[in-house]
Amino acid sequence: MGTVLRVVGLIEKKRRGQELTEREIEFLIDGYMKGRVAEYQMAALLMAFCLAGMSASEALALTKAMLRAAKPLELRDVPGQKLDKHSSGGVGDKVSLVLAPLAAAMGLKVPMLSGRGLGHTGGTLDKLSSIPGLRTELSPHQMKAQLRDVGLFMAGQTEELAPVDRRLYALRDATATVASVGLIASSIMSKKLAEDLDALVLDVKVGSGAFAQSLPEARALAALMVQIGARMGLPTVAVITDMSEPLGRAVGNALEVKEALSALRGRASEDLMEVTLTLTAYMLHLADALSAEQPPQRLSAHVLKRYKDECMDYIEHGDAFARLLRMVDAQGGDAEALLNPSLLPRAEHVEPVEAPEEGYLQALDAYWVGQAALLLGAGRDRIDASVDVAAGLILAAKPPDELKKGQPLAMLHTNDPALLGPAKEAFLEGVRIGQRPPAPRRLVHEVLLSPQG
Amino acid sequence: MGTVLRVVGLIEKKRRGQELTEREIEFLIDGYMKGRVAEYQMAALLMAFCLAGMSASEALALTKAMLRAAKPLELRDVPGQKLDKHSSGGVGDKVSLVLAPLAAAMGLKVPMLSGRGLGHTGGTLDKLSSIPGLRTELSPHQMKAQLRDVGLFMAGQTEELAPVDRRLYALRDATATVASVGLIASSIMSKKLAEDLDALVLDVKVGSGAFAQSLPEARALAALMVQIGARMGLPTVAVITDMSEPLGRAVGNALEVKEALSALRGRASEDLMEVTLTLTAYMLHLADALSAEQPPQRLSAHVLKRYKDECMDYIEHGDAFARLLRMVDAQGGDAEALLNPSLLPRAEHVEPVEAPEEGYLQALDAYWVGQAALLLGAGRDRIDASVDVAAGLILAAKPPDELKKGQPLAMLHTNDPALLGPAKEAFLEGVRIGQRPPAPRRLVHEVLLSPQG
Repeated sequence: MGTVLRVVGLIEKKRRGQELTEREIEFLIDGYMKGRVAEYQMAALLMAFCLAGMSASEALALTKAMLRAAKPLELRDVPGQKLDKHSSGGVGDKVSLVLAPLAAAMGLKVPMLSGRGLGHTGGTLDKLSSIPGLRTELSPHQMKAQLRDVGLFMAGQTEELAPVDRRLYALRDATATVASVGLIASSIMSKKLAEDLDALVLDVKVGSGAFAQSLPEARALAALMVQIGARMGLPTVAVITDMSEPLGRAVGNALEVKEALSALRGRASEDLMEVTLTLTAYMLHLADALSAEQPPQRLSAHVLKRYKDECMDYIEHGDAFARLLRMVDAQGGDAEALLNPSLLPRAEHVEPVEAPEEGYLQALDAYWVGQAALLLGAGRDRIDASVDVAAGLILAAKPPDELKKGQPLAMLHTNDPALLGPAKEAFLEGVRIGQRPPAPRRLVHEVLLSPQG
Repeated sequence: MGTVLRVVGLIEKKRRGQELTEREIEFLIDGYMKGRVAEYQMAALLMAFCLAGMSASEALALTKAMLRAAKPLELRDVPGQKLDKHSSGGVGDKVSLVLAPLAAAMGLKVPMLSGRGLGHTGGTLDKLSSIPGLRTELSPHQMKAQLRDVGLFMAGQTEELAPVDRRLYALRDATATVASVGLIASSIMSKKLAEDLDALVLDVKVGSGAFAQSLPEARALAALMVQIGARMGLPTVAVITDMSEPLGRAVGNALEVKEALSALRGRASEDLMEVTLTLTAYMLHLADALSAEQPPQRLSAHVLKRYKDECMDYIEHGDAFARLLRMVDAQGGDAEALLNPSLLPRAEHVEPVEAPEEGYLQALDAYWVGQAALLLGAGRDRIDASVDVAAGLILAAKPPDELKKGQPLAMLHTNDPALLGPAKEAFLEGVRIGQRPPAPRRLVHEVLLSPQG
């Protein structure tokens, strides 16, 4: 049977809801990279995966096929335990900027590869680009050297690390086929597996500002990634955390860097620290478990607290902040701007959104806050769009704050005053004020461990 | 909102199972033809239509959008009633070759535009290409003149008649998105509506050799096309006919032309004549109803018989055959070959398939007979493949014939003897022999009329 015929036959098989085998998925991905499977055929297949479903075996097979086309990092001869954290993405999620230098200061090696990210605000790379001079395009050689010397790097995926994902992601973006648990899981895991890690912690966000809008969806995504990790020999822990409202107070690239700098100096929103420290604790625990050749466990409250206290020591003594300075310096960035954040990009126009009535702030919907930030210029709605790193907003109130009418809810930052009106409108869509305080927010919902992890 | 964003948003809307509006579908098709919607985006949308469903309104909107991009025939100034018949396709379906000259001989104008068709055997155009010299690429001017002078033509769709369908069909073929009732209905109806007809008869096949494998599927397709016809002001009748076994005895292009010639001379299989005459009767009835300004009706057995008897008169007196000769002559074909069919292309190798046991022939599955013909070279599995017009097979037995072991079931015709083995094997997959005769075959299942028709 000819290749073309076989390709069409496999798309048809998936369209009929049947499961593709590992060999068939390998054939399709290999053919796609070699030009024997056309973009439109891959687009039809991706839509079929979205609508006819994708099994765990198919997601694992896709991960393997993507990895097979990649040239992974080789970090074996860098001494120490290599761990990374990956987030499924949310509004105001600057966790990486705090967690990575903290974990490195505490002795882990953190080879952090990030993307530019679509949506409300940029990805970690966009946030980093607000630091003057900072390079995020590092060669594998530079990555290795910096990991050895500084204990961490934050860089963009090189073409060779994720060649399939790069093409598939752009295609999914253009064909409305992003939202598939299987496709998301294999995209993330293929990239993380290419980092040659010893263990991985996943932050799976759940809520209006995340891909997973409900706990069952988040659980499905988390479970699938943990399972892929286990099958590929990478001990993986997934922590499901809340994204029904933004994390911390800043949303927008330079604004989030500033908030992360505060956090590294011990001044941060409680929610941001709670999530950051929980994830760091699991990285430390995974490293400890590997050293002890024990399987990792769900941490009890008191063990978790011990890890968190240890983390806070490293923050309070300045080690975490110092580690970020070293990283920025090593990557050619202006460390001065970190010591004096007023040197970071600033927007020309800053205007408040005011509380339309008095009462308790019951909800601040992450989706709408994200939309407001996007409208202000902080995010991108297309892969090839650029972001305004200075744009975004700072929350002046968070649930369950009590408000007076007219009190500022947030300060909007933008370089284009015409954007303020629509952004305000979007922001207010997400505001709910009532006469009683809201129920307390649950930040960490669940922790999933690999079965063999 | 930018065009790109709107396109992705609309694909997403469909992926979520929501109905697209007429304006949205128009926007997508127009954008596709103007290059603002990429092939891969259309491919994803087609797959979403296949899997998330396509409503009757969406199919109607797609038909309209396709028609809007076309330059239809203009047949107003050709006197007489213009009617066509279209089949959803089956194995051994040479009905058009008999019906069109017959209907023209009886006074109808038959502007028959056909495609090359995919599958077991070629489409009508492929069958016609076995007649030496015959041109099927006619200009609109030639079509009009021939319709006036000869009463019929059989030609290929010109680029301008179905520009969207031409591209969409190739794309569907390459992305396993052919099998959608809505996409099939709008493809067929947009082409038929571009023929500027007064009325239309549809032959919707049901059974293993057809797209519709079950009566409910056939009914859904028939009802949708009849509904689109009604909404577009084209009186349409759909007749659901059996395709669980091949129609007539010949399967393959030149072989089917020979069988059609026999039929036009009054010597034909009963099943072929039954289907052909029923469809012709409905064409005549539609024309009569239009003349009388009455809505068409489901024909009673005795009215149907009257029409059929009238048809047989025209066959027995040679008018129908003579009309085909005139058409072939007008289109530059060798009419001599029709009078002496041994001048038509013949395959070099002819071999029997023998009955593996004795008993009654209970079933001769159209799918497998079609596969055998395809393997012999009679059909194409890709839009750009060529067919061997001489290849195919002649059934030597049909259910409920009683067989002796070793008696020929069919004669296989091919120019490549290496194909005989696999073709025989495929053929025998479709043969069922038993100790009792099968239940009688029902040829015409249902007739559907447009509500406003």
